[in-house]
Amino acid sequence: VDPLDPLRAILPEGAVSTHPGEVAARTRDWWALAMLREARGEILDRPVAVVFPQTTEEVSSVLVWAQETGTPVVPRGGGSGVSGGAQAHRRSVVLDLSEMRDVLAIDTESQAVEVQAGIRGDRLEAALEERGLTLGHYPQSLALSSVGGWIASGSAGQASAGHGVIEDLVLGLAAVLADGRIVRLRAVPRSAAGPDLRRLFVGSEGTLGVITEATLSASRPPGAVRWVAAAPAGFVEGIAVVREAMQQELRPLVVRLYDGADAALTFGEIGHAGGPVLVAGFAEPRDADASEARRLAASMGAGQRSEEYGMHWWGHRFDAVDVYRRIMGRDRSLGSGVVVDTMEVAALWGRLPELHAAVGAALRSQAEAVGCHLSHPYRSGASLFFTFLVRGADDRAAGDAYLRCWQRAARACHGAGGTVTHHHGVGLLKAPFMEDELGRPGLEALRAVKSALDPAGILNPGKLVRGGG
Amino acid sequence: VDPLDPLRAILPEGAVSTHPGEVAARTRDWWALAMLREARGEILDRPVAVVFPQTTEEVSSVLVWAQETGTPVVPRGGGSGVSGGAQAHRRSVVLDLSEMRDVLAIDTESQAVEVQAGIRGDRLEAALEERGLTLGHYPQSLALSSVGGWIASGSAGQASAGHGVIEDLVLGLAAVLADGRIVRLRAVPRSAAGPDLRRLFVGSEGTLGVITEATLSASRPPGAVRWVAAAPAGFVEGIAVVREAMQQELRPLVVRLYDGADAALTFGEIGHAGGPVLVAGFAEPRDADASEARRLAASMGAGQRSEEYGMHWWGHRFDAVDVYRRIMGRDRSLGSGVVVDTMEVAALWGRLPELHAAVGAALRSQAEAVGCHLSHPYRSGASLFFTFLVRGADDRAAGDAYLRCWQRAARACHGAGGTVTHHHGVGLLKAPFMEDELGRPGLEALRAVKSALDPAGILNPGKLVRGGG
Repeated sequence: VDPLDPLRAILPEGAVSTHPGEVAARTRDWWALAMLREARGEILDRPVAVVFPQTTEEVSSVLVWAQETGTPVVPRGGGSGVSGGAQAHRRSVVLDLSEMRDVLAIDTESQAVEVQAGIRGDRLEAALEERGLTLGHYPQSLALSSVGGWIASGSAGQASAGHGVIEDLVLGLAAVLADGRIVRLRAVPRSAAGPDLRRLFVGSEGTLGVITEATLSASRPPGAVRWVAAAPAGFVEGIAVVREAMQQELRPLVVRLYDGADAALTFGEIGHAGGPVLVAGFAEPRDADASEARRLAASMGAGQRSEEYGMHWWGHRFDAVDVYRRIMGRDRSLGSGVVVDTMEVAALWGRLPELHAAVGAALRSQAEAVGCHLSHPYRSGASLFFTFLVRGADDRAAGDAYLRCWQRAARACHGAGGTVTHHHGVGLLKAPFMEDELGRPGLEALRAVKSALDPAGILNPGKLVRGGG
Repeated sequence: VDPLDPLRAILPEGAVSTHPGEVAARTRDWWALAMLREARGEILDRPVAVVFPQTTEEVSSVLVWAQETGTPVVPRGGGSGVSGGAQAHRRSVVLDLSEMRDVLAIDTESQAVEVQAGIRGDRLEAALEERGLTLGHYPQSLALSSVGGWIASGSAGQASAGHGVIEDLVLGLAAVLADGRIVRLRAVPRSAAGPDLRRLFVGSEGTLGVITEATLSASRPPGAVRWVAAAPAGFVEGIAVVREAMQQELRPLVVRLYDGADAALTFGEIGHAGGPVLVAGFAEPRDADASEARRLAASMGAGQRSEEYGMHWWGHRFDAVDVYRRIMGRDRSLGSGVVVDTMEVAALWGRLPELHAAVGAALRSQAEAVGCHLSHPYRSGASLFFTFLVRGADDRAAGDAYLRCWQRAARACHGAGGTVTHHHGVGLLKAPFMEDELGRPGLEALRAVKSALDPAGILNPGKLVRGGG
């Protein structure tokens, strides 16, 4: 007898697939190490089946079955995560939410949109655009990733300076607990009714429950963007300009500060001559803020640059995904023995120069082509996004070097008071660093919460908190 | 042998008090029903002792002792909560954090201030002012309440429109778990390292851990405030003006929309002739936003009023605390058989007119002098703050009517899609409404988290989640 028959019996026809192609396509997300392993011919652990639920209630049925049978469940949105959070296990079923993609309601008066969590970002934007709205959440993976994935991984969009990060947008949600109970948290702008359970699911990576629906706060589309571009003397000088702008409470839509290496990659096409570049976009009617930012940069010694820098970035802002797919995917344009990855960290302004230096040095000790940009500024601090390339004699050596590189960089990050992930989540990649991140009592508290909500440990085991649950 | 001797032995001389006056002063917070009971001569449950720790480590020692002895612990900040969250139990010790009032560090570059959680708001503001900063968190209780109390109760200051609510300001914190373990969460602007444990303690009301230190995000002091005042035709018309302003992303520091009853109380002194009043303050350099708000109100049919309305509110913004103290405290200026309270709810804009009508009707069915103002606007919705007066033949009858009044109003609030508390927390008063607030699975999830972190149930039992832990 097929152990999946009871699962098939409680779901609509065709909701459970064991088709080899469908299963193989859901063994991993875009974690660089998994892609490297696959590229060198390793067969990644395959789930026993892929389940395609269409409703919250069907997700509940799947989890009841999974808990009864002790089957690990790996929830999956767009599969574009880069930390291994959606990597499958040999004994698991993958809960693929991509068919839960309906817009359930748009309340234009409240500018609130209620969706099924599997909806992809571009589809959501299209639905909002018809109603004169935007979510304003634009990760590079917009056309690949899902609302549920954004919430589960703690996503931040490129326009976070103007629109906020994902937790700023979540008004309400539905999540299914490990035993199948459905938690529905009403959509309200803010509440003091205890710890915010909505927030407990942000960043939970499928380990505490499966997010199946969400109500999000939308915006009116920003006006035309005025770009300010400047060339600070150095990256640290550029940090100071961004800090001052944020602490003066200017309201950019987007801020990007590139170090020389990253600027060369990003702006080489338009003839950038070298050195750091700062671009900031201000949506109308924030013209006064744009002028003040320009004045500020000049007063702090940064030479003015053409608005073309900003427009060039804006025009190519989703390109990196294609580049990444090309260099890490099937065609492996960089050849074997090479792995490319990114690391996004964050700290208070006072620690940011040290964070930049320490993580940069740790990465350069193990990797090449280390570039960095600051892309999510706050009043209190900012994130730094590093890209790096690790090379080994062969793929296996490159993989080992890659893990060493991450270990060193994570240690350096924590030593400089940073968090080891600003918006790419934890997954498998950063789970080993969570004890340093939260301290042992903090990690134990998170594990206790995990065990309380998922005592059988069926929800995405091994992710986020190793050994928990 | 005195069972408190082991506790005395592990703390500095004088840290444990059983002085009748000190104990009696810590039986309750400012919950109206407790004040009414006390006023009618009822002896409220007294704790066995008050403990005054000075460090996080001492709090840890107290909790280790409490867990070993099964002693309930009631953490207490300024004691100015209005929901009974700090009410003592007969067998409890009160953990009074008022001696943990040091500013530990001010990082002016990051505009981050690290404090012990017992520091009072006015003292913190004074320390920040010396460094050219402000927290911008101004609850009416500023001179009474503490940072730890703000975090534990989910506080919102009067200038939340400009400065955000308390969770927007918390960068890092230290909390002691029930078994004495100290969780130290690093101060960072944002992280995707799992569910935000910092956020788990916001609104936790001492039930998940004792918040002992916090790092908060400060601002530069706002410039001179320009006031816009208008008289919308009705409260619902006024709601529409505020909604439009927030959805246009204007940036007020403060917004207050009063219905006729509340406006008469608030602006009678300056000759207000009746009807709703809208005031909004914009700090320099947001003059363009002020002008746009004025234009917007006029275009939506609201008559312009003098800036004096705004200045008058600003000048008296902390007075209500004194009024409340007078009418509910020892002198009971309204006489016996009377209880005055406030209820602050919130909903999305699309539900706000219904929320206003439904909660207003429920309160008027049981109470007199029902007034309402909108005071915390967001892009997606806002809070409504009701004041009401319940009268009974005597204090006992008034108390019974008061609880009926809350039950009806809470039901009406939930029926209109609202949350039953925007910033006054849950405590004892609203714990019975938490099942309707979160749904049964949501409440059970919260109880499971509570039980996981406090298996012996010593932390502020009975508050927030009745029957949990």
